[in-house]
Amino acid sequence: MTPTVQLASDLIRRRSVTPEDAGCMQLMMERLEKIGFRATYLRRGDTDNLWAVRGDSGPLFAFAGHTDVVPTGPESNWQHPPFEPVIEDGYLFGRGAADMKGSLAAMVVACEEFVAAHPDHNGRIAFLITSDEEGPADNGTVKVVEWLEEQGEKIDWCLVGEPSSTERVGDVIKNGRRGSLGLELTVFGVQGHVAYPHLAENPVHRLAPALAELASEKWDDGNDFFPATSFQVSNINGGTGATNVIPGEVKVICNWRFSTELTAEELQRRARAILDRHGLKYEANFKLSGQPFLTAKGALVEAAQRAIESVSGEATELSTAGGTSDGRFIAPTGAQVVELGPVNATIHKVDECVCAGDLDTLKDMYREILCNLEM
Amino acid sequence: MTPTVQLASDLIRRRSVTPEDAGCMQLMMERLEKIGFRATYLRRGDTDNLWAVRGDSGPLFAFAGHTDVVPTGPESNWQHPPFEPVIEDGYLFGRGAADMKGSLAAMVVACEEFVAAHPDHNGRIAFLITSDEEGPADNGTVKVVEWLEEQGEKIDWCLVGEPSSTERVGDVIKNGRRGSLGLELTVFGVQGHVAYPHLAENPVHRLAPALAELASEKWDDGNDFFPATSFQVSNINGGTGATNVIPGEVKVICNWRFSTELTAEELQRRARAILDRHGLKYEANFKLSGQPFLTAKGALVEAAQRAIESVSGEATELSTAGGTSDGRFIAPTGAQVVELGPVNATIHKVDECVCAGDLDTLKDMYREILCNLEM
Repeated sequence: MTPTVQLASDLIRRRSVTPEDAGCMQLMMERLEKIGFRATYLRRGDTDNLWAVRGDSGPLFAFAGHTDVVPTGPESNWQHPPFEPVIEDGYLFGRGAADMKGSLAAMVVACEEFVAAHPDHNGRIAFLITSDEEGPADNGTVKVVEWLEEQGEKIDWCLVGEPSSTERVGDVIKNGRRGSLGLELTVFGVQGHVAYPHLAENPVHRLAPALAELASEKWDDGNDFFPATSFQVSNINGGTGATNVIPGEVKVICNWRFSTELTAEELQRRARAILDRHGLKYEANFKLSGQPFLTAKGALVEAAQRAIESVSGEATELSTAGGTSDGRFIAPTGAQVVELGPVNATIHKVDECVCAGDLDTLKDMYREILCNLEM
Repeated sequence: MTPTVQLASDLIRRRSVTPEDAGCMQLMMERLEKIGFRATYLRRGDTDNLWAVRGDSGPLFAFAGHTDVVPTGPESNWQHPPFEPVIEDGYLFGRGAADMKGSLAAMVVACEEFVAAHPDHNGRIAFLITSDEEGPADNGTVKVVEWLEEQGEKIDWCLVGEPSSTERVGDVIKNGRRGSLGLELTVFGVQGHVAYPHLAENPVHRLAPALAELASEKWDDGNDFFPATSFQVSNINGGTGATNVIPGEVKVICNWRFSTELTAEELQRRARAILDRHGLKYEANFKLSGQPFLTAKGALVEAAQRAIESVSGEATELSTAGGTSDGRFIAPTGAQVVELGPVNATIHKVDECVCAGDLDTLKDMYREILCNLEM
């Protein structure tokens, strides 16, 4: 068992179901302190956060990640107990193996190797670790970023260890993410008996053409890095259950995944314009879950691409697809952000696993990124 | 206490919550047998039905009604216990006072008075009574009508005792009812993550423009007796509850109240044409609850109008508004059908009541209708 796989196993053994850290950060720091990292623990609400840094000045490179994992569901559904890591047929099994304790282990060992070879490296290398990425993410990375701003610190390059790969480690890196804007919409009418429609006002009827327009609206064309902004209804509910009652209101929950071609404010304005034009009586509660971000080109993307090619000999694809990540909190500070992690096929599922060898490949890529950035 | 109010009280005292008859029919027959009515009891499923007739040949006039009442809800919400009839400030309180034990009492006493004055009347006078009007109505009037057809009997004139009046007894009579067609619609899509809309197909988005068209469709213009056909959505439900999942299907329950200008078959055809034109994958379950019927003019309407004017001195309004009634089962046999009953302000509510004096006014009107028809 390699040092990377050993450390990943030790992390998996800790039952750090979100927002618990369960000692993972301490385990990482035992290793990082030995190579000169200084830790600052930032407890916020129910969440543990760690900022650890090596070096005193110069460009700031940060590994970002999380120690928390999603719940296991009934453990009896797992063939391999989720918190008892085991290697079988070359795969390391356990909750968090891919998302993202394997990445954390690769980051730590990559630093050990890099520091051994470059004890007097340039700039500063840091770890930004939280135990609240899989939960509401209110007390995690966003709070560390606020604290960094208070300290006057600014991350230049950030490598998030989220499992970005689809078939082979490094085949895809994320150099941005779409924004996510939620809307809880309630349309009001007047309840009544279906036999007396003139005494009622059916909010479903009022909503339908507005919803049709929202669903068919072309919000933008996307751009070279982002697909077109997408609007989706996730839930719609109206009615008393009785078949002879016109409902008094109907509720719709919807969501935009949006590109860098427009802003959350613009989406809200355009959505309200559609609702207003249809004369709806409504209440609209928008919630911005994440701004879109993009690291189009630059030293970090190039360093990552070169590292992947030198380690695995393969080209990598830049992508902004998929859900949100904590990169959404870091990118707005002006940092270049790239996500590179193991294959994501089993994340959030039972019998989560990762190819054990991939963790060392990933470790090599991380180390080479530090080299390529001339840290 | 007049005989009509006394009999109404005796009926209210019987806890005939649908589909129970609780002895009401027997109580009515004790009176009707004394004046020459012959009873046929038609038990169907959980339902009691009564067909009673006086006379051997000639035109057939039937009083139609029901002994069952809607549930009381928590009796503690009633100021006057629902099955302990009491008169207060001139009002008779109790479940069924207005819907429609008061009418049943008025029918019986009207017959007693009419037969006393016209022992050798023309034609035949009948009672068609069920205990399943407030429930599914599967084993009630519809079954008696089937049985009458088997016997080769045909009702010429039918007076339904449903509470048709709005402010004063007789101010409104119903000479028809709209049809009622229900639709349970399921629109199918493909479930998926909102971040990957290209892998999913949102059934709410597909439905919205079709629903907008159904809601804005002009189905007909109605006619002199019916308002325009009305379409209403009563329930719409789609979504898993999660805000990041595109639902796999959405369910809509809707209903048409339709005039005699079109048929249920035509409505189904036009609805399917709209759904098909929008390319929906759907399942549509239509249920016809009642055909529309109309007794435009004729001996029965005229007899009722004249009776009301002679008893109360007031003009009456013909109406086809409101919900369905058992008249929907009788009218298709070719009978003229009119509904005349007490003020409907408190029906189905707590502390249901009827002006006690109105029951005798109604009894007089019923008796005069028999006279006007020259029975």
